[in-house]
Amino acid sequence: MAADGAPSLVRVGELPAAGSGIAIAGDEAHYLARVVRLRAGERFGATDGRGTLATLELLAAGATCRARVLERTQVPRARPLEIWCGAPEGARADWLVEKLGELGVAALVPIDCERATWGRAAGRRERWERLTLAALRQSRSAWALELRPPARLVEAVRALPVGGARLACRPEGHGWAGIPAVPADPPAVAVVGPSSGFSDAELKLLDDNGFVALSLAGGRLRTETAALAVAALWAGAMAGPAARDGVA
Amino acid sequence: MAADGAPSLVRVGELPAAGSGIAIAGDEAHYLARVVRLRAGERFGATDGRGTLATLELLAAGATCRARVLERTQVPRARPLEIWCGAPEGARADWLVEKLGELGVAALVPIDCERATWGRAAGRRERWERLTLAALRQSRSAWALELRPPARLVEAVRALPVGGARLACRPEGHGWAGIPAVPADPPAVAVVGPSSGFSDAELKLLDDNGFVALSLAGGRLRTETAALAVAALWAGAMAGPAARDGVA
Repeated sequence: MAADGAPSLVRVGELPAAGSGIAIAGDEAHYLARVVRLRAGERFGATDGRGTLATLELLAAGATCRARVLERTQVPRARPLEIWCGAPEGARADWLVEKLGELGVAALVPIDCERATWGRAAGRRERWERLTLAALRQSRSAWALELRPPARLVEAVRALPVGGARLACRPEGHGWAGIPAVPADPPAVAVVGPSSGFSDAELKLLDDNGFVALSLAGGRLRTETAALAVAALWAGAMAGPAARDGVA
Repeated sequence: MAADGAPSLVRVGELPAAGSGIAIAGDEAHYLARVVRLRAGERFGATDGRGTLATLELLAAGATCRARVLERTQVPRARPLEIWCGAPEGARADWLVEKLGELGVAALVPIDCERATWGRAAGRRERWERLTLAALRQSRSAWALELRPPARLVEAVRALPVGGARLACRPEGHGWAGIPAVPADPPAVAVVGPSSGFSDAELKLLDDNGFVALSLAGGRLRTETAALAVAALWAGAMAGPAARDGVA
């Protein structure tokens, strides 16, 4: 009989049906065998980061771990929020990625703006993938933060589907309570300016394209703080049994 | 005539009435003279971090700067929130302090719990004071985050005044929308467990003392993320012209 191991969660590419065997290699095998030190017969969790969550039994630990799927479930996605974020200062993007992952943001799009581009920071993708994985483990969620390639603001706006909620985080905006209920589909987008701010042309672009200005706090926030604050407002509106249907 | 200098804000001990002279020494003088490189005749902002905000004109830059108060105003405090926070892992407390400062939290109380105490981290007070000052400059606020000395949870609860809102950040709690309206006075308190969690006895203590369980997100959050998320919910509920009177 499988005993309950430490509460651990790994991410795998695909999760086969209950009863199937699965091989887990690389970092995730190292995590199971060396970090959590799971032994054969113990259980652990796994997700594909795209909504599938499973309980597995470890059959053999090693550089490649062998396991068996005990049960597999599909976890519905909460109402998704994409954050389009201008470049923050210095290494602040690292923890931005970690925190957006923990808070259940659907996707992060690094946005290149007139006054600031992501430049070399966008090359930290491998590190960000690791931070995303750590956030997934921490949150024990079935949905991972998707890291999109950087995009220019004007092009990202042009590619937006019709009908989703569009929020622009701006100190002079409405309070959260003043934001109208948000449709479930397509995903809502919240855009946050770079540390040097949006240009006037960019602010006009956002206005012209239906982005509702949202004020997050009494004071000016750093870029990464604003991104995290809107993610927290979103997560808070979704959390708990008393959550309303709309995000208002 | 005084010209507008770079948008800068310094913190001073006391702000005298308009027309008075003031000497600014130490780090703040260095900031004005060397970082912002303000010149005589230029204006800058100053606050005592306790609600007074002033516009000053620089008379002479140097190791001690001389300035004149042009106007002085009192900024009412938004509904205050204290965060009692268990010890996070590693150096995560540094950015916790920075972010709570930016988001306008009134006070941070490091809370020693059964499973984790702040230990040496509480000795980083000098560094935290610098981060608080940087957050004050960033947010351009008249109210600084107050850093309280560490306290044991049971003693902090015992010392609480009657009648304020008491929130305990717990995954199994109510959603934000399910939290009843919060009285303006005394300050609301939100308590966040350490990375190793509250003990059963501590959870009972919180239940017995009227702490309402608040769920912040769908997944498990790290300590510092939870503290930041509740601060963001609070700030969001206060921000913008559409903010409601109650925090509900």
